[in-house]
Amino acid sequence: MNESFSQWVKGRQDRVEKAAETLLPSVQIEPKILHEAMRYSVIGGGKRVRPLIVYAVSELLDADIKNVDRVALAIECIHSYSLIHDDMPCMDNDRLRHGKLTTHAKFGEAMAMLAGDALQPEAFSYISETTLNPHQKLVLISLLAEASSSRGMCGGQAIDLCMVGKKMTLSELVHMHSLKTGMLLHSSVMAGLWCGKKESVNEDLTDALSEYGHSIGLLFQIIDDILDVTSDAKTLGKTAGKDALEDKPTYVSILGLEKSRELAREQYDKALGALEKAEAIVGENKTQRLREIADFIFSRDH
Amino acid sequence: MNESFSQWVKGRQDRVEKAAETLLPSVQIEPKILHEAMRYSVIGGGKRVRPLIVYAVSELLDADIKNVDRVALAIECIHSYSLIHDDMPCMDNDRLRHGKLTTHAKFGEAMAMLAGDALQPEAFSYISETTLNPHQKLVLISLLAEASSSRGMCGGQAIDLCMVGKKMTLSELVHMHSLKTGMLLHSSVMAGLWCGKKESVNEDLTDALSEYGHSIGLLFQIIDDILDVTSDAKTLGKTAGKDALEDKPTYVSILGLEKSRELAREQYDKALGALEKAEAIVGENKTQRLREIADFIFSRDH
Repeated sequence: MNESFSQWVKGRQDRVEKAAETLLPSVQIEPKILHEAMRYSVIGGGKRVRPLIVYAVSELLDADIKNVDRVALAIECIHSYSLIHDDMPCMDNDRLRHGKLTTHAKFGEAMAMLAGDALQPEAFSYISETTLNPHQKLVLISLLAEASSSRGMCGGQAIDLCMVGKKMTLSELVHMHSLKTGMLLHSSVMAGLWCGKKESVNEDLTDALSEYGHSIGLLFQIIDDILDVTSDAKTLGKTAGKDALEDKPTYVSILGLEKSRELAREQYDKALGALEKAEAIVGENKTQRLREIADFIFSRDH
Repeated sequence: MNESFSQWVKGRQDRVEKAAETLLPSVQIEPKILHEAMRYSVIGGGKRVRPLIVYAVSELLDADIKNVDRVALAIECIHSYSLIHDDMPCMDNDRLRHGKLTTHAKFGEAMAMLAGDALQPEAFSYISETTLNPHQKLVLISLLAEASSSRGMCGGQAIDLCMVGKKMTLSELVHMHSLKTGMLLHSSVMAGLWCGKKESVNEDLTDALSEYGHSIGLLFQIIDDILDVTSDAKTLGKTAGKDALEDKPTYVSILGLEKSRELAREQYDKALGALEKAEAIVGENKTQRLREIADFIFSRDH
């Protein structure tokens, strides 16, 4: 690995960007405004954490990177649709995301809802259009369907919705976030695995990476909550301090800032521990990118 | 076929109802309110036209009915989610559907949006959980993804949205409806085919049934537009006369009532013509149910 982490990240971000530009329906095709809204929501935004995870894991297993592009984009489409709907007036009512207007602020509520709706089947199409074998495709489709279901992402959002202004215990909060953001992050790890050559995947590796996936999922949300308190809108690219303003339970509101930082550290250590187990199988230093991703999530400021 | 059409319909409606009750996430599972909203939207509503089509086609091909239950329900989940979102204030703003409160009127906008969102992955899961072979599953998943995409249902809704208050030509209207409602009806025909034993499907049969699917798709919408003018809310189970009130282009507004009825008759005849071609392959009287479904769509009063 001669590339620095930031070079590697840039390379993978460019790939997923290119895939989005190529695979998302063109604005030349009717209905143009819908396709414009879909592209606006996916292209040019965000850190692409989920795709980066898919790439990093798949690279452990010699996957065909063209297939990985599609799978990474599929997950990013699910993530993007959830942000579009989450930002809408009936949900979080946010007008700023990744430093630009949210989709409904730019295209109107109805078109934003449709853009989100249309990104879901797009994701499943991208997976079925890979050259992976039918079994791999079906596992990936099930993974993604489950992660975005009412037992996953949508379920977490529903709990979130019901909990505004209510007291939540730490374990309830962990559960909510494990659904709302954790499952899609965890699925990104598993999806990377399934993009790889199946014959080389053993159960211990799957378990180790699954543990890594759970830890970074949790870590991601704790850091998000900390940043909502400690960062400003300009750095964050979205409205800061909203959680407290809306009386939403967060790690910081339940544990305080210091204990939240401790919990984050704990999850970070757990993630690295899981990677050590993985390295015992795939070889020393092979999980460097995954370690760097954990570092990045742990130390990000936006 | 000793069963009358209405007995057959009742039997199949009961099956899809039972499948929905069994397969949709239980209200005992958290988040209960989301699962309640999902079940409210799918269970106990509608004529189940799409599932009926899936069953009728699959019966031509000796499909395993337990697989057909899942595929039929999958398509009904996509249809139901589209109704939930379509009824929302930012879209059609309807409070009445199938004679009961729309999902957002009962559960609030945010929960309704999530219920719709969560029904999409549910559909893809049901297909992947059948015992069909991997190739059949993947074809069905692609069919459904394409039909509900921005080149299908969502695309039709986007065009609809942009056309309120604007003049539309007949061919533009046909194109809009072929996306908005036609593709999912057509997919129901194709899905029924793919549920069957693949080795017995020949190309001519596929073509004939595809033609049938296109015709009943068009027929369905023309009748819908006619009913909006000629029926009352009580019979219709939803707000009547809304299209004209909202200045939406319809077959009736473009062609007038008489010419719309003629066009409907034309599509009905086309559908029956396609079934004649199909019978030349599968045998005389084998497509009776499909003919009865065309009759039903043609002559329905709600």
